Amino acid sequence: MSIILFHQAFGQTLFQALHAMSFDGLGMTRPSYSEKENEAHEILCAIAREYGLEIRRDWACNLYLTLPGRDRSKPAVMTGSHMDTVPSGGNYDGAAGVVAGLSILCRWVKDGFVPERDTTVIATRAEESVWFPVSYIGSRTAFDLLTEKDLQARRVDTARTLAEHIDECGGKSQWPHEDILKAENIDCFVELHIEQGPVLPSNNAVIGVVSGICGSMRYRHATILGQYAHSGATPRKFRADTVVAMADLVTTLQVYWERMEEAGKAMTLTFGVCHTDAQQANFSAVAGKVSFSLDVRSQDTDLLNEVDQHIQQVVQDVAKRHNVKIDLGERTGSSPAHMDADLQRMAFEVSNELNIAAMSMASGAGHDAATFANRNIPTEMLFVRNENGSHNPYEHLEMADFAAATSVLDGVLKLRAERI
Amino acid sequence: MSIILFHQAFGQTLFQALHAMSFDGLGMTRPSYSEKENEAHEILCAIAREYGLEIRRDWACNLYLTLPGRDRSKPAVMTGSHMDTVPSGGNYDGAAGVVAGLSILCRWVKDGFVPERDTTVIATRAEESVWFPVSYIGSRTAFDLLTEKDLQARRVDTARTLAEHIDECGGKSQWPHEDILKAENIDCFVELHIEQGPVLPSNNAVIGVVSGICGSMRYRHATILGQYAHSGATPRKFRADTVVAMADLVTTLQVYWERMEEAGKAMTLTFGVCHTDAQQANFSAVAGKVSFSLDVRSQDTDLLNEVDQHIQQVVQDVAKRHNVKIDLGERTGSSPAHMDADLQRMAFEVSNELNIAAMSMASGAGHDAATFANRNIPTEMLFVRNENGSHNPYEHLEMADFAAATSVLDGVLKLRAERI
Repeated sequence: MSIILFHQAFGQTLFQALHAMSFDGLGMTRPSYSEKENEAHEILCAIAREYGLEIRRDWACNLYLTLPGRDRSKPAVMTGSHMDTVPSGGNYDGAAGVVAGLSILCRWVKDGFVPERDTTVIATRAEESVWFPVSYIGSRTAFDLLTEKDLQARRVDTARTLAEHIDECGGKSQWPHEDILKAENIDCFVELHIEQGPVLPSNNAVIGVVSGICGSMRYRHATILGQYAHSGATPRKFRADTVVAMADLVTTLQVYWERMEEAGKAMTLTFGVCHTDAQQANFSAVAGKVSFSLDVRSQDTDLLNEVDQHIQQVVQDVAKRHNVKIDLGERTGSSPAHMDADLQRMAFEVSNELNIAAMSMASGAGHDAATFANRNIPTEMLFVRNENGSHNPYEHLEMADFAAATSVLDGVLKLRAERI
Repeated sequence: MSIILFHQAFGQTLFQALHAMSFDGLGMTRPSYSEKENEAHEILCAIAREYGLEIRRDWACNLYLTLPGRDRSKPAVMTGSHMDTVPSGGNYDGAAGVVAGLSILCRWVKDGFVPERDTTVIATRAEESVWFPVSYIGSRTAFDLLTEKDLQARRVDTARTLAEHIDECGGKSQWPHEDILKAENIDCFVELHIEQGPVLPSNNAVIGVVSGICGSMRYRHATILGQYAHSGATPRKFRADTVVAMADLVTTLQVYWERMEEAGKAMTLTFGVCHTDAQQANFSAVAGKVSFSLDVRSQDTDLLNEVDQHIQQVVQDVAKRHNVKIDLGERTGSSPAHMDADLQRMAFEVSNELNIAAMSMASGAGHDAATFANRNIPTEMLFVRNENGSHNPYEHLEMADFAAATSVLDGVLKLRAERI
């Protein structure tokens, strides 16, 4: 059986098993640190045992499945992703990266191939921050980067703490923590993931070689204050209409984004939340208050700052034009993570050899890979095309595409794992 | 004492009494059919008794204070307004029209003036539809225009029905209803009211001679449906962003309103409510749904329809531009009410004689006067300047302005009441 057909059959069987154990009637639900997440990890372990892989868990119940190398003292090659899902998510966000890694190790075992270096598939915990309000829990517990405060964060549905959930799943949340990953012991981390937007299908590409993980600049709680006034009795020129000011702000920044795109500056700009006051606003009054959120993402920290400066100016202009006050509130966000140039080149080379259409693209969403990259570990992500976005039941992954992308990952990992 | 000084002193005393009995710490609160509204009516009755006016109540507790004319068979001249307020409203919305009318009758009595026709001040009930979800309750009960369903509407704070409240205040809600007004017995209705927007101060005018009460065209529950998508992973061209579509709709119609104004077409256009979905929207997702309300007002029914046609076209264009669906929902609204041309001319003549700056203007808000006008009774409204809008504690009425406007009303009513 060819490598591609092996990965296709392996993926099909395992994705069906995951679907069967976690379909909730609408989509897949495997909450972070839940019975369902545990069960998914158990399915992986059963296969690992069948193929004789080493199985290890750290204090936070992250799972490591390792094919030992010829020289176990050398830094290991790592791949993997997470097994939790958002509520009623799809069958592939997270899982695809773990299934791909496991498929590769099983194929290697089947072929009798023993790499120079240890090669490990990691299944991290709690990547979907919808359950606990903490980012990248799995990769950050692996490197012991969480604070005690993070461990006291509560799961939104159970109201129990992260520490309680870790202990309940068989981990040991008490300090000091055990089995911590160290950057110097890791050669590289390469994560396969479904694409979360429709870029690849529209470019007729099967895989995306990720050039970087975007950082973000956010104003989560911004407000516009104007003046409530009678809708019939207040002429236009006397209004301080916050809905009209909001519309001007959105439209002005949308035009700016178009201009930036034309100038080749890659970014996204999103007003995800926007609302008049639920108590005070009514259909027969000019709205005196609007609240909104603004999320800007880019791979380029300087660009994020340039956009922020422009936003500050636009906000002043809009406030003046409409006689309102605009308060953006606290700026929050995350730093971009750089993907390794050598790994990107390797991914393109392997894709070319296998005749699989690949293109370079940024990851707009955050991933555990960012944690590895920010520990200065050579890191890369491979996206597989999916036209339906992620975090919904309609995530779509053709098994042929999965097999193609897994074969590219296979080639890249093998090149790294064979390094002397 | 000159007429103007009499009205000023009368107003000052009575407004102070109303403030004293209904100030709630922030503003005035006299709910519809409440003890406080009753008490305000009692204050009026006490003065009416002092001056020997006839006092009558109808089945719905509307109050009629009448100076009998020489020929009681002739249709009567009527003036007045309402005594209820919104929660924490000002001291003048409604009350000013009743106080002005009563001041005029008292002055006539003091002068020994007996008009040809009965002249009546009406204090209607429940004009502020914030308490019961029914428009113009007082004037419509006076003409017996409410349905049984209207009478079963419940007050938002007490949850008791309008019928129960009427009976509790001494009325008789059971059918048939007694003491119904008849249009053929009414010569005219002229209502004095504070202005509800800042038009008069900005034109250095003291009184506004109302040319008509605007009708409205409303879409109270409109929605835009697009596509929720990851804010970082979804490029601009793949979005169906409802916030951006909403902004385009608001901005496009705002520009249209400006053009209409330039063409001399008087109207207002207000998006009072506008919100992304409280459950689904979040800062890191493109918003897939926006709900909004749209309120358009004009004195001109044809113009309302012209604007509606334009809105339909804009909605189609915006939906196409942004790949979203826009559903305006049910169109509701009210018809404009025409003010009487003779009464308007009379009001300008009297203003000129008294050297009081007057200007013609529309009423953007609805008033009981619309009920009279729509019964084909010659109807007019006089606005008094107030720079702070209405339905708030900051309503402002200079007593000199009140006296000036009351003097104009005095002159107009006298001209009508003396008609043979």
